[in-house]
Amino acid sequence: MTHLVDLVADLGEGFGAYTAGDDEALLDVLTSANIACGFHAGDPRTMDATVRSCARRGISPGAHPSFPDLVGFGRRAMELTADEVRTDVLYQIGALQAFAAAHGTRVNHVAPHGRLGNLVATRADYAAAVADAVAAVDPGLIVLAQDGELAEAARARGLPVGIVGIADRAYADDGTLVPRAQPGAVLHDAAEIAERTVRMVTEGVIDSVGGEAIPVECDTVLLHGDSPGAVAVARTVREQLLAAGVTIAPLPEVLDRKRGS
Amino acid sequence: MTHLVDLVADLGEGFGAYTAGDDEALLDVLTSANIACGFHAGDPRTMDATVRSCARRGISPGAHPSFPDLVGFGRRAMELTADEVRTDVLYQIGALQAFAAAHGTRVNHVAPHGRLGNLVATRADYAAAVADAVAAVDPGLIVLAQDGELAEAARARGLPVGIVGIADRAYADDGTLVPRAQPGAVLHDAAEIAERTVRMVTEGVIDSVGGEAIPVECDTVLLHGDSPGAVAVARTVREQLLAAGVTIAPLPEVLDRKRGS
Amino acid sequence: MTHLVDLVADLGEGFGAYTAGDDEALLDVLTSANIACGFHAGDPRTMDATVRSCARRGISPGAHPSFPDLVGFGRRAMELTADEVRTDVLYQIGALQAFAAAHGTRVNHVAPHGRLGNLVATRADYAAAVADAVAAVDPGLIVLAQDGELAEAARARGLPVGIVGIADRAYADDGTLVPRAQPGAVLHDAAEIAERTVRMVTEGVIDSVGGEAIPVECDTVLLHGDSPGAVAVARTVREQLLAAGVTIAPLPEVLDRKRGS
Amino acid sequence: MTHLVDLVADLGEGFGAYTAGDDEALLDVLTSANIACGFHAGDPRTMDATVRSCARRGISPGAHPSFPDLVGFGRRAMELTADEVRTDVLYQIGALQAFAAAHGTRVNHVAPHGRLGNLVATRADYAAAVADAVAAVDPGLIVLAQDGELAEAARARGLPVGIVGIADRAYADDGTLVPRAQPGAVLHDAAEIAERTVRMVTEGVIDSVGGEAIPVECDTVLLHGDSPGAVAVARTVREQLLAAGVTIAPLPEVLDRKRGS
Repeated sequence: MTHLVDLVADLGEGFGAYTAGDDEALLDVLTSANIACGFHAGDPRTMDATVRSCARRGISPGAHPSFPDLVGFGRRAMELTADEVRTDVLYQIGALQAFAAAHGTRVNHVAPHGRLGNLVATRADYAAAVADAVAAVDPGLIVLAQDGELAEAARARGLPVGIVGIADRAYADDGTLVPRAQPGAVLHDAAEIAERTVRMVTEGVIDSVGGEAIPVECDTVLLHGDSPGAVAVARTVREQLLAAGVTIAPLPEVLDRKRGS
Repeated sequence: MTHLVDLVADLGEGFGAYTAGDDEALLDVLTSANIACGFHAGDPRTMDATVRSCARRGISPGAHPSFPDLVGFGRRAMELTADEVRTDVLYQIGALQAFAAAHGTRVNHVAPHGRLGNLVATRADYAAAVADAVAAVDPGLIVLAQDGELAEAARARGLPVGIVGIADRAYADDGTLVPRAQPGAVLHDAAEIAERTVRMVTEGVIDSVGGEAIPVECDTVLLHGDSPGAVAVARTVREQLLAAGVTIAPLPEVLDRKRGS
Repeated sequence: MTHLVDLVADLGEGFGAYTAGDDEALLDVLTSANIACGFHAGDPRTMDATVRSCARRGISPGAHPSFPDLVGFGRRAMELTADEVRTDVLYQIGALQAFAAAHGTRVNHVAPHGRLGNLVATRADYAAAVADAVAAVDPGLIVLAQDGELAEAARARGLPVGIVGIADRAYADDGTLVPRAQPGAVLHDAAEIAERTVRMVTEGVIDSVGGEAIPVECDTVLLHGDSPGAVAVARTVREQLLAAGVTIAPLPEVLDRKRGS
Repeated sequence: MTHLVDLVADLGEGFGAYTAGDDEALLDVLTSANIACGFHAGDPRTMDATVRSCARRGISPGAHPSFPDLVGFGRRAMELTADEVRTDVLYQIGALQAFAAAHGTRVNHVAPHGRLGNLVATRADYAAAVADAVAAVDPGLIVLAQDGELAEAARARGLPVGIVGIADRAYADDGTLVPRAQPGAVLHDAAEIAERTVRMVTEGVIDSVGGEAIPVECDTVLLHGDSPGAVAVARTVREQLLAAGVTIAPLPEVLDRKRGS
């Protein structure tokens, strides 16, 4: 049996005259992209150029909606009502869809950004709001999530769910991520991250800090492009997956082949 | 032969805690709406509520994109590149389309707001940028315009065009609008405006300040809801059109029946 | 002994083309104003006009800084760091001071708005951040607060504190405000509110819902202008205070005379 | 006689998570800084950190107000009224003054940014608006300008004016700058720029493209930090000025010693 996985990263997180991350370098690596929609980063020109690049490279575009907090880059919690989350997410998905239409492609997934992305894993009201927005605008949209409230809310509405695998973070023995503040929580060694990724994709497990083999699902691997080191890691992960015989494909194809048939 | 016309006004121009105009009162009068998309007015909640109201009443929703100038309400000229205009318009149309999808309807037209709306009549680069955005996102979208560069650019791209009739402004003998700064440029008498509207729709002419009968096209009549007086005018215009045997219908139907068959 | 009190309300809470509240009607009633500084409401024109009106009428201007949340009118909690609160408050105070200087007056107090205003009563980190900002920009600025963390933080830094009296809210027997969600939490009867205000100012007590006489401090009474009813209440409060022999004066004068001598 | 000059560059032009230019590298070179105030770049944290750095190094802080256009970095013309320019500039100066007060220093000059900075050289209404704002908030503030409308408007109001010398641009024989679009308009060679700067400061002339010695005033030299090359140029300019015996001092001191005595 062939193993299948998608490679995704955040793209288009510049704003106006500002750039962020090395999008160009990631275009050779990715099969999907989480594209900023203007609320934490991204402006209409950045969105247009990013979607165009994705369309040319066969990278599947996804929306990366955020709290409305440009100066905080969407990293700060905001106490919004569920209706505010739902409508903010609708707005951002729609905005990105226009650029997808303009470039002959379509938005295939939605992956909440930053603090909103953290909160939808545990807050049922925010998770429901995001899932409601997705279901309302296009029930074919894939919801990208780790296990948690958002994944559940999406499944409850019949939305396709893509589970994100995290290979560059340490896992506790109970299967949760070691908090960033703790030493060793974030891995940086390319070979180690690539090896963990291969095991996660081909065996469905990841090693905890205590040496336990934790079972993990993984439809897509989250990569980064915010430093030269991160881009090098991303390349190594891709190479090692290919070397291990894994098929790397855009998320819709991964889900179709894994679930649909 | 039955005469046909659409009645349109700007809706959803509040922002956050702020309201603008009497949208509720206009819902009984209109068959189409130009809905603010967040750049000069309108936020995701306002857009959601406005599109929902339109969907319930059978009012055809249209996008009302603007220069990015919330504090100036889109009334101030900005020296943008054509690419900036194109991408700003794409973004705003897409955002509104998401709410239309969520409420089981669709965005049927695009009518640039405020200063952008003025400039596209005379600036070929801005007109082309708007028409390019519309054609790229959905070539079925109707472009709402007065005669001018935008109408031409839209036709050149094969886009349907709806010509806006202005009955509450004085016309010079050469067919141009008398500038607002001049006395008598803006009419306020409901009966007079309604009479001019009926003549415009049924005979295709409007009287100039010098008494000339100016030929005018009119697929839709632009009404206002920003004062109690304006709402009263809007009601009178509707009543007098009906009394004159004119059929009032949403813009897509007006164009279909006038042009399509 | 003469009783002294200041009358304050939020002013200048429009934005761009939007207006909010009846500022004009309050100018005859107030001796101080909390002026929006652009983060939840208020733009440079509104700030300029509001400060000018205050300067002409002898109304003492104060800054009304907020979380950076225009679309939410500053009513939504945001998880900012203390440094973000401090610098956001500094920015807003400074911006208002420029208009005060331009109109030959000065900013005399700082009163956090909306959700920030609620949180500084109970969150020591936000309270310290606001007090640090005030102390850094001008240690002569009065901090407006109810009893709580902000009042304490201000006193700890040697800043003058003006205690706000709330006469239009029901008090529980323990001296806390009855939550807004409960019936009867907000009073609307002008005569009743005025009578409570007079008692609060002249006797230092307010009646609880259970009939207890709760001791309250009150250097300034918070009034409202967001509805015709609110303006009528404000006028009645002023009239009844004068009828009771209370001297109504701007906050700096109230504090000078109550504390300074 | 000793020659005196100030060295200035734009600082603090990041926003939120975004950085711009190598501010740290310039701190060893400059004696003054044009600090972004939030309208084209700069947020309260950036402003706070930049003013703190200036205060520690003895660099004189100046305000760098802009059109309200974050996404366009203040580079796009906007058709504002003079009152809009005046109040936008007041707001920005005041905001920066708060950080100066917090760090025990003061804002010493005002230098309009980007497109506003270009337009005030030729548009008398915008020039008057900026000069009015400066005169209203603090008539001791120095207006930084090239020769043109703003310099005239400032002098007409009795404001001190600091003339900016541009050494890295080619001059036409009539003394105007060669437009950027033309080849050779912008110089990049450090030695050449430094030599031109020294001659400008010590002899009061700069060579035109046709070989004419154009008389130029220069109280401050505008440097850049937006690329490693630019920082290297800045360092060379400073070294060569010192080598030529020029005294480099903050702008207020330069003007005091050149004009005041």
